[in-house]
Amino acid sequence: MKRYFFEIAYDGTKYYGWQRQPNEISVQETIETVLSRLYSNAIIQITGCGRTDTGVHAQHYIFHVDLEAINDLEKFQFKLNRMLPDAIVIYSITEVLADKHARFSATSRSYRYFIHQKKDPFVTDYSWYLPQQLDLEAMNKAATLLIGTKDFTSFSKAHSDVKTSICTVTKARWVNENDGLYFEITADRFLRNMVRAIVGTLIDVGLKKITVEDIPGILAAKNRDAASISVPAHGLFLWRVEY
Amino acid sequence: MKRYFFEIAYDGTKYYGWQRQPNEISVQETIETVLSRLYSNAIIQITGCGRTDTGVHAQHYIFHVDLEAINDLEKFQFKLNRMLPDAIVIYSITEVLADKHARFSATSRSYRYFIHQKKDPFVTDYSWYLPQQLDLEAMNKAATLLIGTKDFTSFSKAHSDVKTSICTVTKARWVNENDGLYFEITADRFLRNMVRAIVGTLIDVGLKKITVEDIPGILAAKNRDAASISVPAHGLFLWRVEY
Repeated sequence: MKRYFFEIAYDGTKYYGWQRQPNEISVQETIETVLSRLYSNAIIQITGCGRTDTGVHAQHYIFHVDLEAINDLEKFQFKLNRMLPDAIVIYSITEVLADKHARFSATSRSYRYFIHQKKDPFVTDYSWYLPQQLDLEAMNKAATLLIGTKDFTSFSKAHSDVKTSICTVTKARWVNENDGLYFEITADRFLRNMVRAIVGTLIDVGLKKITVEDIPGILAAKNRDAASISVPAHGLFLWRVEY
Repeated sequence: MKRYFFEIAYDGTKYYGWQRQPNEISVQETIETVLSRLYSNAIIQITGCGRTDTGVHAQHYIFHVDLEAINDLEKFQFKLNRMLPDAIVIYSITEVLADKHARFSATSRSYRYFIHQKKDPFVTDYSWYLPQQLDLEAMNKAATLLIGTKDFTSFSKAHSDVKTSICTVTKARWVNENDGLYFEITADRFLRNMVRAIVGTLIDVGLKKITVEDIPGILAAKNRDAASISVPAHGLFLWRVEY
């Protein structure tokens, strides 16, 4: 058996998240089913770099899987892409050492959250429509306060079963590009719902519902109720995973 | 009462076409319902520039409606855009003469059909994925043979209830832009299913299943079976309506 890293992308609109679900179609199940067909219906389990919620997209996602040695990787990739739905693409397949793990070996992850302020019917699944005027400078000042090694309990779904809520954020900034706007954040790890809670809070700064000066107190509260409500899933993309 | 032209766009994925349907949600019904709410639930009927099938998008669409004089058009447009779903946008509202008709006054319509040849999960609702190699030069030669005043029965849904199948096509060409490819066609009028049947036939030329020389015979046959099968709806956009 050889271990392979698959570099993929998918449209989250079409699936109930990455993770296999009992009664809903997930990205994981869709890929496992196709792989299984290529291996005489053997049970194939793939391990993703993380979960994504329903509606969240992946511009870049890595999973690993142990398979009998693949002779022609390019041909295998082509075949898989033809078998998979249009909403999932395999960009590359690479053999890696057996101890390399899609989730645990990842050193950083980046997300982007897209917002459009002019109504545009053709991006509704990939960007959040928010016509209100935003104070981008204040939003960027508030974003900077999130950089560093901090406890992000206030931006995490309550009752998450993780051992620690400490994350090291290395990048957090708003970028204004053409008609659109996106928030970019990079960290060693993310808690459940963290990016959407952060974006919701920074937007409240932009709307002047709260101030930049409120951010340290929100972090210190270690209470989800201290931060603002989460923005919708469909504007969020897992953008890059580094190893 | 004043007559107004509304310039709009919509994502066809979210609706069962433009035209009001008994049991499905159409673009027409969605807009009529919102307008009705602005006029004390009076019955409001709007008249579109044409039908679009389920899944077909409109980058530019015109409808007309007779309403009591609107005082502040900009404010009215803003209000409507807030009330309508994200997948429908009003770009402008203009008062016109009472005899101007969204459908009958239109002098030309243009459609674009989008194809992507590299798998891309984020355009699946707006472009058709076709990885096969295409002979674009042959496709453009074949497209040229469609320009002029001709009988398009071979490219029309059988048993359409229109009086004539004669259309004057003024533009028909393939454009290769970045990673994508689109077909652009302009005519005074279009028959039901016509663009999708034409695109299917031109693609068969590109795939060398038929030749450029087959086109005159297909037109002359005046029989839908002479042309190729229609391409899927989701790559098609009504692109421009001229008056």
